[in-house]
Amino acid sequence: MKSEEKSNFNPDLFRHRKASLLSVEKYVEGITQGDRTILGRAITLIESERVDHQQLAQQVIERCMPLSGKSIRIGITGSPGVGKSTFVEALGQVVIQDDHRVAVLAIDPTSTISKGSILGDKTRMEQLSNHPRAYIRPSASGQSLGGVARKTRETILLCEAAGYDVILIETVGVGQSEIAVHSMTDLFLLLLLPGAGDELQGIKRGIVEMADILAINKSDGERVHLARQTQLAYQQATHLALAKDSEWVPVVTTCSALEKTGIGEIWESVQNYHQSVQSNGYLPGNRKNQAVFWLKDHIDVYLRNSFYNHPAVARKKEDVEKDVMLGKCSPFQGAKILLDIFEKE
Amino acid sequence: MKSEEKSNFNPDLFRHRKASLLSVEKYVEGITQGDRTILGRAITLIESERVDHQQLAQQVIERCMPLSGKSIRIGITGSPGVGKSTFVEALGQVVIQDDHRVAVLAIDPTSTISKGSILGDKTRMEQLSNHPRAYIRPSASGQSLGGVARKTRETILLCEAAGYDVILIETVGVGQSEIAVHSMTDLFLLLLLPGAGDELQGIKRGIVEMADILAINKSDGERVHLARQTQLAYQQATHLALAKDSEWVPVVTTCSALEKTGIGEIWESVQNYHQSVQSNGYLPGNRKNQAVFWLKDHIDVYLRNSFYNHPAVARKKEDVEKDVMLGKCSPFQGAKILLDIFEKE
Repeated sequence: MKSEEKSNFNPDLFRHRKASLLSVEKYVEGITQGDRTILGRAITLIESERVDHQQLAQQVIERCMPLSGKSIRIGITGSPGVGKSTFVEALGQVVIQDDHRVAVLAIDPTSTISKGSILGDKTRMEQLSNHPRAYIRPSASGQSLGGVARKTRETILLCEAAGYDVILIETVGVGQSEIAVHSMTDLFLLLLLPGAGDELQGIKRGIVEMADILAINKSDGERVHLARQTQLAYQQATHLALAKDSEWVPVVTTCSALEKTGIGEIWESVQNYHQSVQSNGYLPGNRKNQAVFWLKDHIDVYLRNSFYNHPAVARKKEDVEKDVMLGKCSPFQGAKILLDIFEKE
Repeated sequence: MKSEEKSNFNPDLFRHRKASLLSVEKYVEGITQGDRTILGRAITLIESERVDHQQLAQQVIERCMPLSGKSIRIGITGSPGVGKSTFVEALGQVVIQDDHRVAVLAIDPTSTISKGSILGDKTRMEQLSNHPRAYIRPSASGQSLGGVARKTRETILLCEAAGYDVILIETVGVGQSEIAVHSMTDLFLLLLLPGAGDELQGIKRGIVEMADILAINKSDGERVHLARQTQLAYQQATHLALAKDSEWVPVVTTCSALEKTGIGEIWESVQNYHQSVQSNGYLPGNRKNQAVFWLKDHIDVYLRNSFYNHPAVARKKEDVEKDVMLGKCSPFQGAKILLDIFEKE
């Protein structure tokens, strides 16, 4: 146990060992004192599917809630190959040099084993992961995006209680997980490649519109000119788009995470954004909306699960779906059949 | 009663009179014989919120299901001012001249009184509404888009059972209702204005991507050249977009509903589309997916309603939301509080 409790590095290697549980007090004490091992164990508790772990985790979260919220939460996305990990490492180092404490989390609903997840390979963030003011956590695993998203949301709260005031949440690829990340962050940063239009980069248009900062990465060597052209094109597109609720005009910039150029400017933009949405009241209002959104989402998920996992419903579901598909009954009638079964028992 | 039962015109004027209910047999007989008054009364039954009306309506729908499905369902949208009603009237006339029977429905979740809805003002479709092979129905009213959408979906089934083989479903403005219409139609037709880009026309990009036919209306007089330019721009954009599941390459065309030019070509495109998605199997597969989508949607809506309408939940909901907003408890904990209340009773 000793080596696990003292080590500052990669407590996750020990996650599959049966670790004894601590008391709520001990978890909260450890977290608020910035003990990264205990923080890691508390996050593991959040991620556990066991009911007793869940109950304990909820008590820890409840105790940490009053200490949370004092960070800027930044969502970072971009297609595979855009250089997300290198960028996160470079940005994280700038943040640390500016005397902040940074936590790096990830959402990857496609990974089922946490070790195989995007940030699992910590060697990709070697410098950052060894820094005492940085905390890196591989992505939560889980069956459903909703489950993964909840775990990540609650992990944010614990990291904030542990004193991390910049939270970077990386997400992989394109699609639903961006929406989830967007609903739990204050600022959305999209990484792009020089040259190709967003469709060719595999980015859905809605994602571009969500971005507060667009950074064209890999602006180095021969690609500098192309990156600049891409920047101008996106600046024009951004200029034409409708104003955001935050009143923030998206910043389009270039950088090279590899050569560490343009990263300081991005961090400046983040700070400008933060100041702007703090002072116009958008940030606190948005966080309240996000909290209610997740409240409703949890309720929806629970209601749906208890319905579809009901044995009698599960038995009948396929037949009803088939009848609805074949037009033997209307969707409304099919729903009624299943709901009647559900309510009778 | 006689005058109502015999009149072919505007039975809706009588909707607020207490009409005696018919038997299921009588409704089905009337509908299948193409009696528009009885069709109108059956739709009124679908739209009623009364439980006994709903039960009767569901029996009528069930009996009509085997006779439904044999139409092409066309969703038509575009921003206010694009000339939707004039276009629908012009297209409807072309369809009728081609020996088809056309039903025109509308989705307008913003209207609370059905008479004030988009198609309520029938004088705007005078010629079409007087034609024996056309049936025009003002939009269903309702509190929620989901409710309105269900009513429209079930109205489609009855119209099909009554022998209408072209269903035009008009929707107003931009946003959620387009998604609803898209999930109940085979083909999505977007009306545009000459000149302005889609953002300036108030059209979200996702809507443009959903369209199978894009028609630049008001291509008349001095606007012909501008309409042609707009056509070229959208053709280019469409060309760049990813291939659709239907394998259909969207058609971009110009027309003038006022001068009735280009409407025949649009009807031809509709028929080409229909033939193409019938023969490659997309249409039947898509309809099955749509039916299952609505099955799940009805279940979701019902589960949510029974939860939020639960008296004890309703009493506590505001307090919990406030606590979640203020960060006194996490969204997950808030959800748990409400769900515990719900399950205890």
